Amino acid sequence: MPRIKATIEYDGTRYFGWQLQKGQQTIQGEVEDALQVIFKRLIRVTGSGRTDTGVHARGQVAHFDIPEFSLRRLKHSLNGILPRDIVIKNLEVAKDDFHARFDAKDRRYRYYISPEVTALHRRFSWIILSPLNVTLMQQGAEIIKMNEDFKAFCKVNSDVKHYRCTVFRSRWLWEKDSGRLVYEIVANRFLHGMVRAIVGTLVALGQGKIGLEALQEIILSGDRTRVPLTAPPQGLILEEVRYN
Amino acid sequence: MPRIKATIEYDGTRYFGWQLQKGQQTIQGEVEDALQVIFKRLIRVTGSGRTDTGVHARGQVAHFDIPEFSLRRLKHSLNGILPRDIVIKNLEVAKDDFHARFDAKDRRYRYYISPEVTALHRRFSWIILSPLNVTLMQQGAEIIKMNEDFKAFCKVNSDVKHYRCTVFRSRWLWEKDSGRLVYEIVANRFLHGMVRAIVGTLVALGQGKIGLEALQEIILSGDRTRVPLTAPPQGLILEEVRYN
Repeated sequence: MPRIKATIEYDGTRYFGWQLQKGQQTIQGEVEDALQVIFKRLIRVTGSGRTDTGVHARGQVAHFDIPEFSLRRLKHSLNGILPRDIVIKNLEVAKDDFHARFDAKDRRYRYYISPEVTALHRRFSWIILSPLNVTLMQQGAEIIKMNEDFKAFCKVNSDVKHYRCTVFRSRWLWEKDSGRLVYEIVANRFLHGMVRAIVGTLVALGQGKIGLEALQEIILSGDRTRVPLTAPPQGLILEEVRYN
Repeated sequence: MPRIKATIEYDGTRYFGWQLQKGQQTIQGEVEDALQVIFKRLIRVTGSGRTDTGVHARGQVAHFDIPEFSLRRLKHSLNGILPRDIVIKNLEVAKDDFHARFDAKDRRYRYYISPEVTALHRRFSWIILSPLNVTLMQQGAEIIKMNEDFKAFCKVNSDVKHYRCTVFRSRWLWEKDSGRLVYEIVANRFLHGMVRAIVGTLVALGQGKIGLEALQEIILSGDRTRVPLTAPPQGLILEEVRYN
């Protein structure tokens, strides 16, 4: 059975995140249900990682095994069956042992902040009306890049062996057309809740609630309870997952 | 009573366009209702122009007269009363004779086309999966700019004295992050249904259904029935209205 690598885009507003949960609508569940309609049996789907309730993806990657089938037809059928807020962007045959999670080289997230109330971007933005010191937030983003243990930004119930992540990019930029402030982060791995904890902390910095030294201290403490603010889910998009 | 110039952003999905209509939800109607809640009487709102059912705006402009009032408070109150898909972006005191429609110098629209099914941009895109010859569409956009009578692109029930428009900009561009193709047009005035008729015709060109000569002939004919295709409303955004 060929192993398939799928690239999936979704508006996570209506879902309890990526990962299958009994009795809840999840992206993984919807994709497995659609595959079951086509192949008349359960086909397990493995994602590159979870996204939380209300978080979106432009380029989530997943793998699954199917009998021989036209990928062009399969993509078309899946998009016909799936609800309109989940879209299969690409399907391709991968190596037999390709693993969406373990083989990922890096992941890129963006977090969108609107400094004004917005009608057009409200599904995908955190609206912050108070002034933000973006220069300070940019310095905070640099500090994130210089660290490698992010236990303080990891949800406490996470079952991981260690908290080390290599951050390749961490910066703020402006999206010209929409006037939104965007945080972009690329790392080899992310801990549970990590991006939203980082964004919340950098926003606290931009609002003058903490200083740069406090940011470094929070990271070194490894203590999640010291994170001053967690960003809400709707501003977060998993943009891309890359493989070797 | 001071005359107020308001800049309004809206997601037009749920509305029967800008203009007040008995028994229908419209943007103008919602803004007038919100003003009535605050001032306890009817305050008529005049827009820079109509937008059709399902069309959006990032920068619609309107004027209205109110008793003396803090504009900061008014903006805050209006945004508290208005549904979340309509947002007052800015309020300022204008000259007593300022007119949102007659004083406008130019208007800028963008039309968004997604060449792939999309979950994140589906509310604001026309999805076209067939291949498009964008080079030809760019040449078509140039032809639009060289013409000045657009009767062929005007809805037949329109009550206007003439069909002349000065087009300052007409071009296609790519939106990098979303992978969408965008048509941008700036003109001193627009006829009813004009942008969607132009976009539909340029898409017909890009699909090989008509050629560049046919495009020029359609414009010269002044015959709306010769327009091969009208673009659907959800891809259209009134981006900006400028004044002297």
